[in-house]
Amino acid sequence: MGSESRIILASGSPRRRELLEKIGIEDFTVLADTSEEVITPGLSPEEQVIKLSLQKALNVAKKCNKNDIILAADTIVYLDSKPLGKPESYTDAISMLEELSGRKHSVYTGVTLLRDDKVISHAERTDVSFREVSGSEIEAYVKTGEPMDKAGSYAAQGRASIFIERIEGDFFNVMGLPLCKVSQMLKEFEVRL
Amino acid sequence: MGSESRIILASGSPRRRELLEKIGIEDFTVLADTSEEVITPGLSPEEQVIKLSLQKALNVAKKCNKNDIILAADTIVYLDSKPLGKPESYTDAISMLEELSGRKHSVYTGVTLLRDDKVISHAERTDVSFREVSGSEIEAYVKTGEPMDKAGSYAAQGRASIFIERIEGDFFNVMGLPLCKVSQMLKEFEVRL
Repeated sequence: MGSESRIILASGSPRRRELLEKIGIEDFTVLADTSEEVITPGLSPEEQVIKLSLQKALNVAKKCNKNDIILAADTIVYLDSKPLGKPESYTDAISMLEELSGRKHSVYTGVTLLRDDKVISHAERTDVSFREVSGSEIEAYVKTGEPMDKAGSYAAQGRASIFIERIEGDFFNVMGLPLCKVSQMLKEFEVRL
Repeated sequence: MGSESRIILASGSPRRRELLEKIGIEDFTVLADTSEEVITPGLSPEEQVIKLSLQKALNVAKKCNKNDIILAADTIVYLDSKPLGKPESYTDAISMLEELSGRKHSVYTGVTLLRDDKVISHAERTDVSFREVSGSEIEAYVKTGEPMDKAGSYAAQGRASIFIERIEGDFFNVMGLPLCKVSQMLKEFEVRL
């Protein structure tokens, strides 16, 4: 390992990769943290996603250079105060989407930027309002396979766009990275966009 | 011309084409209306975008079958009550973006669906809040060329994503089609998604 400074994306999500490229960062390395994510009871959504993003950043830092800038993120969907993770099965996806139908939920993404002993973390919340979605629409959507690897069982940028009546906050946060905030955090690490 | 029913997108915008494909409509014909768009003084933003989308639909209908479903849309950015169209030059784009910096503006899209003597129109508003954007960021953005064919001189789905602190409403409306509403309007014309 040299001492050159790289940007490390500590996430296996192809959406996050796309989002980084969208804001003009093309030269980065993907090093996903594969350890299991555990929800800690008693934490607020903000504390929860910050904790998980920080853990990912610290785990990945062990495999990196001192000079590397590590970007880690964790997204959780909360309906009322209940966290919805990725669905474990088609049935699970259907019941999550039934719960989201006709209601507002919140998407939280925690982001951590870390280089050596400098750490910045941030939690961003976006509220998402689903229109009433019929059982047959949910079934057709789950059949596309799109929900299976997504927190809350939907992709805002995909076919589920027709379910989303309204959002309040950063749209890209729902996809997994709050781009406006991330771009400003990167400035703190002298990354020019 | 046969009597088969086609979906006609009365818009030359590649973003609108992408958005239709995103919601699963793949079989459609693009027939853009090339007549000039004129802002009518005294109309509200909603009336304005509905009027323009209706005009586009009616103009394109002349070249279509009776059974064709025509989808037309028009997007205008309003800062306070001032409409911002597409920039006419780099300098124009720079001054529009300077005006948007640190403020909230509204994006209105008018949508008209038309088949024979059945017409539905709708105006959708999304509020977009820009963070303070520096002169050098604006210049760098304009240099990418992205603002040149966009109402308000930016693309929410592109590099300008880092300027957008918050939106309130349908994100895809800012890109040119309010997908949630459009999918429901299409149902009224028996188009299944």
